[in-house]
Amino acid sequence: MAAVLKATPVTFVAHALAVACAVMVLVWCISFRGGLAWEATNKSLIFNIHPVLMLIGFIILGGEAIMSYKSLPLKKEVKKVVHLVLHAVALILGIVGICAAFKFHNESSILNMYSLHSWVGIGVIILYGIQWIYGFLIFFYPGGNTSLRSESLPWHVLFGMFVYALAVANAALGFLEKLTFLESAGLDKFGPEAYLVNFTAIATVLYGAFVMVTVYAQKDQEPEDAGYSAI
Amino acid sequence: MAAVLKATPVTFVAHALAVACAVMVLVWCISFRGGLAWEATNKSLIFNIHPVLMLIGFIILGGEAIMSYKSLPLKKEVKKVVHLVLHAVALILGIVGICAAFKFHNESSILNMYSLHSWVGIGVIILYGIQWIYGFLIFFYPGGNTSLRSESLPWHVLFGMFVYALAVANAALGFLEKLTFLESAGLDKFGPEAYLVNFTAIATVLYGAFVMVTVYAQKDQEPEDAGYSAI
Ligand code: HEM
Ligand code: HEM
Repeated sequence: MAAVLKATPVTFVAHALAVACAVMVLVWCISFRGGLAWEATNKSLIFNIHPVLMLIGFIILGGEAIMSYKSLPLKKEVKKVVHLVLHAVALILGIVGICAAFKFHNESSILNMYSLHSWVGIGVIILYGIQWIYGFLIFFYPGGNTSLRSESLPWHVLFGMFVYALAVANAALGFLEKLTFLESAGLDKFGPEAYLVNFTAIATVLYGAFVMVTVYAQKDQEPEDAGYSAI
Repeated sequence: MAAVLKATPVTFVAHALAVACAVMVLVWCISFRGGLAWEATNKSLIFNIHPVLMLIGFIILGGEAIMSYKSLPLKKEVKKVVHLVLHAVALILGIVGICAAFKFHNESSILNMYSLHSWVGIGVIILYGIQWIYGFLIFFYPGGNTSLRSESLPWHVLFGMFVYALAVANAALGFLEKLTFLESAGLDKFGPEAYLVNFTAIATVLYGAFVMVTVYAQKDQEPEDAGYSAI
């Protein structure tokens, strides 16, 4: 792939899609669903924190972390720090976002962990945490020796792609599930809110696809920057 | 990736997951949901054709088509025919499976094409058809010249991966949506049927992941078989 595709334009499209997703999920949760709150008598406001943090915090920041090696005109050592810090922030916001879903369920007497979305969601966050810790130990501190690093790298990329793809697919599951609940409760299946939610889900999937393409696309940078192989 | 992973064991795991998925979706639709029928007064039996054909026909056969270059001990020319014929069969069964969903909706007076699942589903089948026709024209008959073939190949692989990943994710959306309908109508959220459907969805996603990994894994075959680069 590297031979045919330049990373930079792909990252631009991804950033634009990220902005579109962020705006859409905020408009949905704030204008259509009444806003965000951690404590509220209207428990739906607690739920609303969940899609916002999962999409903007977890998926978008996680995607920017993945793209950082391709999107930033910085030294590799600096980009490595950006990569690991962005992933840490994404992970923490993801965990807080999941707590919001649990809090909403508990305060509304709804069962926890019954759906495919919740199972895949817990799996994704655990795998993401494992991937982060392994990456930190091998590539940052204390850091493995050269052969361990270079043997670990393709697995880090493969496993990272798998977990990220799963996260993006799981966000789509979440949008579908929530919209199905709302439609069962009477929301117009072809009304503006239904279109907004479905378009947000589609933009999210496209963002994820562009993020993943940058991994196999070619960096256009300083030749001293040896890229992946010297990560 | 090719350097670290051998394709053959990965294809074995994928075949085993395919069998598990096929058995589970059949048990679900036949034993739990009452069976399959194209004409019936119980319209649910018409719907049941949809998951069976989409999973066994479209996703599993399509996956086997993708893996055929890695899983079969045959000459490349033969594998190419296997690849394109399996994809054609998958596409046709997928189209028939979608027709079953429309037939069910029409005969039950349910709206068509309102859900994220249906939108992504139509998109996937159209993109799959375009990919098949382009591949046929360039790589089979009449066939492009050598430079067009080799320039098209990485795009064929990239686009093929994208469409296949989308198909697998869309199957998960379908399982979630159907189970959500059933649970809203009273099905036990932690009963055997709910577990069966969720495990089918998880096995489907794992199957898709293993299929996609074979693409980047290393063939272990006769050296005359130059593989991708000479497709
Ligand atoms: C990758 C990102 C996401 C992850 C990891 C995730 C994870 C989770 C988890 C673990 C739960 C279970 C909470 C409980 O059982 O109490 C949950 C619930 C829920 N999430 Fe998400 N979520 C994500 C994105 C989204 C998005 C974008 C939406 C869009 C609205 C959404 C909608 C829901 C809904 C409706 C529930 C409650 C129903 C259920 O338990 O399935 N999720 N999520
Ligand atoms: C990649 C495979 C699949 C594709 C391309 C696909 C495509 C579609 C399409 C185009 C429709 C719209 C029919 C209409 O509006 O009349 C539909 C409906 C439906 N499908 Fe699938 N499907 C797939 C797999 C599945 C699976 C495995 C299930 C599991 C049960 C499923 C469940 C449903 C349900 C419940 C509907 C009706 C509700 C709706 O329109 O969203 N689908 N599918």
